This record gives sequence, C-alpha cells and structure tokens, in this order.
Amino acid sequence: MVQLTRIYTKSGDKGKTALGNGKRVAKNDIRVAAYGTVDETNAVIGVARLHSADDPETDAMLARIQNDLFDLGADLCTPGDGSDDNPDQPSLRITARQTERLEQEIDAINAGLDPLKSFILPGGSALAAQLHVARTVSRRAERLVVELAGIEAINPEAVRYINRLSDHMFVLARHANNGGKDDILWKPGLTR
Amino acid sequence: MVQLTRIYTKSGDKGKTALGNGKRVAKNDIRVAAYGTVDETNAVIGVARLHSADDPETDAMLARIQNDLFDLGADLCTPGDGSDDNPDQPSLRITARQTERLEQEIDAINAGLDPLKSFILPGGSALAAQLHVARTVSRRAERLVVELAGIEAINPEAVRYINRLSDHMFVLARHANNGGKDDILWKPGLTR
Amino acid sequence: MVQLTRIYTKSGDKGKTALGNGKRVAKNDIRVAAYGTVDETNAVIGVARLHSADDPETDAMLARIQNDLFDLGADLCTPGDGSDDNPDQPSLRITARQTERLEQEIDAINAGLDPLKSFILPGGSALAAQLHVARTVSRRAERLVVELAGIEAINPEAVRYINRLSDHMFVLARHANNGGKDDILWKPGLTR
Ligand code: B12
Ligand code: B12
Ligand code: B12
Ligand SMILES: C[C@H]1O[C@@H](n2cnc3c(N)ncnc32)[C@H](O)[C@@H]1O
Ligand SMILES: C[C@H]1O[C@@H](n2cnc3c(N)ncnc32)[C@H](O)[C@@H]1O
Ligand SMILES: C[C@H]1O[C@@H](n2cnc3c(N)ncnc32)[C@H](O)[C@@H]1O
Ligand SMILES: [Mg+2]
Ligand SMILES: [Mg+2]
Ligand SMILES: [Mg+2]
Repeated sequence: MVQLTRIYTKSGDKGKTALGNGKRVAKNDIRVAAYGTVDETNAVIGVARLHSADDPETDAMLARIQNDLFDLGADLCTPGDGSDDNPDQPSLRITARQTERLEQEIDAINAGLDPLKSFILPGGSALAAQLHVARTVSRRAERLVVELAGIEAINPEAVRYINRLSDHMFVLARHANNGGKDDILWKPGLTR
Repeated sequence: MVQLTRIYTKSGDKGKTALGNGKRVAKNDIRVAAYGTVDETNAVIGVARLHSADDPETDAMLARIQNDLFDLGADLCTPGDGSDDNPDQPSLRITARQTERLEQEIDAINAGLDPLKSFILPGGSALAAQLHVARTVSRRAERLVVELAGIEAINPEAVRYINRLSDHMFVLARHANNGGKDDILWKPGLTR
Repeated sequence: MVQLTRIYTKSGDKGKTALGNGKRVAKNDIRVAAYGTVDETNAVIGVARLHSADDPETDAMLARIQNDLFDLGADLCTPGDGSDDNPDQPSLRITARQTERLEQEIDAINAGLDPLKSFILPGGSALAAQLHVARTVSRRAERLVVELAGIEAINPEAVRYINRLSDHMFVLARHANNGGKDDILWKPGLTR
C-alpha cells in the first residue's frame, strides 16, 4: 500500500528516482515522463471538475476516470507487459473493461451530438474549455506512452485506454457546449 | 473537408496514426508532437477566452488566432515546405499576412504599455494569468516546430507565426493588467 | 539589467535564440526547454494565485516562489555550475537557503495534515486543483532540468529547488482542501 507521510525525502535530489518495483532510474527516463504526464492529465481533469457540479453524470464519469488514471499510473510504473505477472501476486493493470466503459460512454454522449464537417475551436463553457485542455494533455501523455511502448513491452490495454480517453474528453466537451450547438467551426484560411 | 462523426476509430490503438496526406507515422513522431502542441496552445487560449468577454477587441484577436492555429495545424500535418505545392491544388499554409496581422496588433497594444526594466511575475487578472499560460505553451509548441524544422523542410512562415504568437500573448497579458500598471516586477535575488 | 521594450525582434524567426551569456543555440536546445518549462511552471502558479486571496500566507509563499523561479531561470540560462563564477561579478544562482525556506514551509504545513494511506485525486477547491497542476508542471520542469544536468554541469542547488517545489505544491494543495480532510483517496482497481 502506498504511504505518504514525510512527503520530501531528498532521495531524488541528484536526479534519480524509483519505479514501482524499486528499480532506480533517471527522472528523465521515458517511463517516468509517461506516468508523470498521466498525473498531469489527472490534474487538469481536476480543474475541469471545478465546473461539473451541475452535471452529476459528467462529474461521475470524470471521477471514475481520475481513479482509473492512478490504475494506469500503477500499471506504467511497474515494468512488464501484464502477461507475465505472477498469478499469486498480480500487478494492478488497466483492463479491457475500463476502456470499454469509456467507449460506452462515448457512444451514449455522441448519440446526442450533431456530426461535424470541420474542427471546432476549443472553448465555450468553462467545463468545455477545460475538457479541451484535458483532451490535448491526455494526447501528450499518449505520445509518451507510445514512445515507451516502442522501447519496452507494456500492457497494450494501457495504450488503448489513453487513446480512448482523449476521444471521451472531446465528446464530453461538445456535450458541455449545449450538445455541440454552441461549438464554433474552424473556417480554413479565414484570415489569409 | 474534415469530417468528425464516429470520433473513436480504434485505428490508433497500436500507436500509429495518419498525417494529413494519409502517411502513417508513430504517434510520438516529432511532426505529430508539433501539431499536437499547437492544438494544446489553442485549448489554453480557449480557457483564456473565458475571461475576455468584456474586452471585445481582445476577444476578437483571440478568436482569429484560434482559427489561425488550425491553419497552422493543417500546414504542419501536410509534409512539404509550401514552395512545391501543386498550384492547381495548393495546400493550406500559413501566410506572411497572418504573422503581419499579429505584428500590427502587437505594435498597437505595445504603444499603450510602459517599457519594462525587469521581467514581470506571470499572473494578475484572470485573463492576464491565462494569457501567460498561453504564452509559455505556445513557446513549447515553437520548440517542437523548430525541432521538426531541423529534420524536415517546413514552411518558414509557420515558424515565424508561432514565434510572434508568444510575443502577442505577452503584450496582451500586460494590456489585461491595467495596461501593465498592475504588473509586478521580478527582483533578482530577493529571497536569498 | 533585463530590458523589455520592443518585445518582438524577429531575431528568433529562424529557430535560434540567445542564452543569458549571449551564446546562440537552437530553440529546441535542452537548456532552453528547461528554463522555458520553469517559465510555464511560473505561469500556472500565476493561475493558482487567482484563488489564494483569502489565504494571505499561502499567497505570500506563492509570490516568493514566483520570484525564485526567475532566479532559477537566470541560473539555468547562464551556463556554468556556479562554482566557477567570477567572484567580482558573480552570476545570480539558486542558493541552499531558498530550498531550505521551502522545506521549513513544507514542515509547517505538513504538521497540520493527516498522514495518507493512498494517493489523492488531484482537485477539490479551485486553489487545490490549480496547485496540483503546478505540482505536475514543476515535475515536468524537473525532468528537463535533470536531463540538462546529465549533459552539462549545472548548479546542484537548482535541481534541489525544483525537486522540493513539487512537494511544496502537494502539501499546499492538501492545506487548501480543508487541511486534507476533503481529499478523496485513490481506490486501486475500483472500476475494473
Ligand atoms: C509511481 C509513483 C508515483 C506516480 C504514479 C502513481 C500512480 N499509481 O499513478 C505519481 C507520479 C502519480 C506519483 C505522485 C506522487 N508521489 Co509517488 N510514488 C510512486 C511509487 C514509486 C509507486 C506507487 C504506485 O503507484 N505503486 C503501484 C501500487 C499499486 O503498488 P502496491 O501498492 O505495491 O501494489 C502492488 C501489488 O500489490 C498489486 N496491487 C495493488 N493493488 C491491487 C489491486 C488489484 C485489484 C490487483 C489485481 C493488484 C493490486 O499491484 C501493485 C504493483 O505490482 C511510490 C513508491 C513505492 N514504491 O511505493 C512513490 C511514493 C508513494 N510517492 C511519493 C510522493 C511524495 C508522491 C507525491 C506527493 C510527489 C509530488 N510532490 O507530486 C505525489 C502524490 C500524488 C497524489 N495525488 O497523491 C512518496 C511518499 C513519501 C512519503 N512517505 O511521504 C513515495 C513513497 C516515493 C518516495 N520514496 O519518495 N507517485
Ligand atoms: C491532422 C489532424 C488533426 C490535428 C491538426 C488539425 C489542424 N488542422 O490543426 C489535430 C491534433 C488538431 C486534430 C484533432 C482532432 N482530430 Co483530427 N485529424 C487530422 C487529420 C489527419 C488531418 C486534418 C487536417 O487538418 N487536414 C488539413 C485539411 C485542411 O485538409 P483538406 O480538407 O484535405 O484540405 C487540403 C486541400 O484541399 C487544401 N485546402 C483545404 N482548404 C483550403 C483553403 C485554402 C484557402 C487553400 C489555399 C487550400 C485549402 O489544403 C489541405 C491540405 O493539402 C484528419 C484525417 C484526414 N486525413 O482528414 C484527422 C481526423 C479528422 N481527426 C479526427 C479526430 C477524431 C480528431 C479529434 C476529435 C481527436 C481528439 N480526441 O482530440 C480532434 C478534434 C479537434 C477539434 N477541436 O475539433 C478523426 C475524425 C474521425 C471521425 N470520422 O469522426 C480523423 C478523420 C482521423 C481519424 N481517422 O481518426 N486532428
Ligand atoms: C533567459 C531569458 C528569458 C527566460 C528566463 C529568464 C529568467 N530569469 O527566468 C524566460 C523564458 C523566462 C524569458 C521570457 C521572456 N523574455 Co526573455 N530573455 C532571456 C535572456 C536571454 C536572459 C535574461 C536573464 O534572465 N538573464 C539573467 C540576468 C539576471 O542577467 P543580468 O541582468 O545580465 O545579470 C547577470 C549578473 O549581473 C548577475 N546578477 C544580476 N542580478 C544579480 C543579483 C545578485 C544578488 C547576484 C549575486 C548576481 C546578479 O547574474 C546575471 C547572470 O550572470 C534575455 C536577453 C539578455 N541576454 O538579457 C532575454 C530578453 C530579455 N527576453 C525578451 C523577451 C521578449 C521575453 C518575453 C516577453 C518572451 C515571450 N514572449 O514570452 C518573456 C517575458 C517574460 C516575463 N514574464 O516578463 C527580450 C526583450 C526584448 C525587448 N528589448 O523588448 C530579450 C532582450 C531577448 C531578445 N533579444 O529578444 N526570457
Ligand atoms: C486526429 C489526428 O490527430 C493526430 N493524433 C493522433 N494521436 C495523437 C496524439 N496522441 N497527439 C497528437 N496528435 C495525435 C493524428 O494525425 C490523427 O489523425
Ligand atoms: C526571451 C528568451 O527566451 C528564450 N526563448 C526563445 N524562444 C523560446 C522558446 N520557444 N521557449 C523557451 N524559451 C525561449 C531565449 O533565451 C530568449 O532570449
Ligand atoms: C513519487 C514518484 O514520482 C516519480 N517521480 C519523481 N520525480 C518525478 C518527476 N520529476 N516527474 C514525474 N515523476 C517523478 C517517482 O517514481 C517517485 O517515486
Ligand atoms: Mg486518438
Ligand atoms: Mg520569441
Ligand atoms: Mg520529487
């Protein structure tokens, strides 16, 4: 179980830190960058939730996602691709069910939105604007997870989850803009 | 024309994605990082616009910039430096005029600001604080655009545009702090 | 002394820029990324301060940190590890005292918080939510500072300062959530 008491330990003052399995690596290790950016994604979702109080369904989705993102962090901080975990002491890893839940939510939300013929300018309501930030930060996290996956084998469900997350943030942002009716479309070359 | 309907396609679940010309690359390709960070810049400008309603001129500048940033994204997602585009079917690229518009706006805003003898602490009004975030995120995007430009030829106007954008965000932030009068200066070594 | 007057100089339009000592480097140089991300950290703290007005002690801590971050930027933009600075014209560098101040503040705040048996979902009050963003962005800055330190000798106090900063943001975020009583704990595997 994770314990947080003293908070600063000075053990990282020379630029090294520990993974979940105790192995010490440089703080600029790609694995640390990957779960550090998942943490950043979680923090920006925390900001979005400042504006979801009057939409309890949206807020509950975001709360589940915030919890999931620590499961994802636990997965990423524990080297291994999930397939070889010791069955007596399995590591906590992202499961297909968690991504499927995102897909069901996307489908349900998307059913209420009009199809789009152009990109939308990110923004609108406070909730929508912050969800667009979450969307783009989760895609930055995805780029680092994919970079890590190109170097070491990781749980493929982790990659799927983070890919789906940005699409969830997109439809939720549209939902938060009056079902997309208040979204403003990009006009290619408008200011040329 | 861009179409957004199903939103999630699962085609990126293994870490590859498509550029504007259909070519498939890894999601951690520097080109994808570059336009992905332009998208993030756009999202944080969307947050800044939550606070520009009572300054319609500022809001209109930000709206034009948001539209420009998709032109910039279209430019960056389409390999080529702009010079060799097929004249019958030109690609959408950033033009010198778009950067010149930023310069004219910077000059007009800057005329109303006092010269500075030190850096200013980012923050102040809600609009100013968020514009400083946009300023620093656009500079992060610039670093990635410059990295891409070191590897492949890209439209030089794209580099100029993103460079000028952060200066625009700086003067606009000062403008949003009572013409700079409420800005607080850095005092070197104050807390030593 | 730093002077800011014209703001845009066009000298960076081809992707090169100057360090504090005048040396020209590519904008995607790791050193530029390091102090650019310190600047971004400063900007997000500026956003957090939109919500600290009714906690003057917290606000004063954040103000000192914002000033420190320009000292840190000055340190990082001036190559050298601090040990060889000309004693007649020393460079401005982060000192041990600045990190010790952070430690004293962390200890004082932490004394009022309950120990934790799990991670906390980032968010809660507006101040707490934004401090979690600052926490994760400062850790991103730290990763770049550590990357730089792996390539060139830098002032070791700079690394310590940025490491401690994220722990400061963590305890301050808990403090801003009713002394941690409103923090919501991660439940491993909750949604599996
Ligand atoms: C990786 C990590 C992080 C990552 C990712 C964590 C995540 N899950 O997303 C991030 C970046 C988020 C992080 C942040 C922080 N961290 Co941290 N973190 C760690 C580290 C290295 C591992 C934690 C972890 O997630 N382990 C995975 C868990 C689940 O492992 P486990 O409990 O051993 O369980 C294993 C099995 O039992 C099984 N399992 C467990 N539960 C379940 C459930 C099911 C259903 C199944 C099947 C299996 C299963 O799977 C696990 C893996 O094999 C620990 C040190 C350590 N080794 O514990 C520090 C540590 C806990 N962190 C620490 C600190 C200080 C922080 C921060 C405050 C830093 C900061 N300033 O931002 C923040 C707090 C964030 C918050 N919101 O609360 C300190 C705490 C110091 C102290 N004593 O006070 C520690 C101890 C590191 C240190 N020595 O300094 N952290
Ligand atoms: C690159 C890209 C992005 C980039 C950059 C786009 C930009 N312009 O900034 C970013 C990162 C922003 C992005 C984001 C998203 N995207 Co996207 N994106 C694309 C991609 C690959 C190209 C889009 C593009 O900008 N093309 C350039 C345009 C302008 O090309 P064009 O219309 O063919 O026009 C050409 C010429 O006719 C000419 N031209 C056109 N207009 C004009 C005007 C003038 C004056 C001139 C001279 C020339 C000219 O120039 C163009 C280039 O040669 C498309 C797939 C595709 N190939 O279309 C997916 C695609 C549209 N995206 C998709 C998705 C899902 C998204 C996101 C929802 C993802 C997410 N979760 O965040 C978001 C939505 C963002 C938003 N706010 O709406 C999906 C949509 C799926 C669906 N059917 O529903 C697609 C189809 C990809 C896919 N297969 O999954 N995207
Ligand atoms: C590095 C840098 C940055 C960095 C980091 C700065 C930091 N300290 O954190 C960051 C990224 C923050 C930055 C941002 C910006 N910058 Co700048 N920046 C510089 C640069 C290259 C160095 C500035 C610096 O910090 N020097 C370190 C200082 C302290 O050096 P110094 O005064 O010479 O002092 C030396 C000694 O005397 C001694 N010292 C000084 N004080 C003290 C005190 C004590 C106690 C001790 C012991 C020693 C000591 O130490 C120093 C180092 O050896 C200057 C160009 C230049 N060379 O001056 C541009 C420059 C000032 N920036 C510029 C601009 C435009 C900006 C931005 C507006 C860009 C933007 N759009 O975001 C922002 C403004 C940010 C703000 N909030 O105000 C322009 C201004 C143009 C103009 N004339 O108007 C300049 C001139 C660059 C240029 N040619 O374009 N910048
Ligand atoms: C919608 C478009 O966004 C791009 N794309 C796909 N994944 C990412 C990511 N993680 N970050 C940035 N851009 C991405 C691809 O070009 C895709 O086609
Ligand atoms: C004002 C100073 O900011 C630095 N600089 C210039 N461009 C960038 C960027 N994209 N990101 C971070 N820092 C930058 C240079 O050192 C310049 O002189
Ligand atoms: C709490 C945990 O966070 C990780 N860690 C330490 N420093 C950083 C950083 N700069 N960025 C991201 N993660 C970090 C380590 O794994 C540490 O144990
Ligand atoms: Mg995707
Ligand atoms: Mg510049
Ligand atoms: Mg640390």
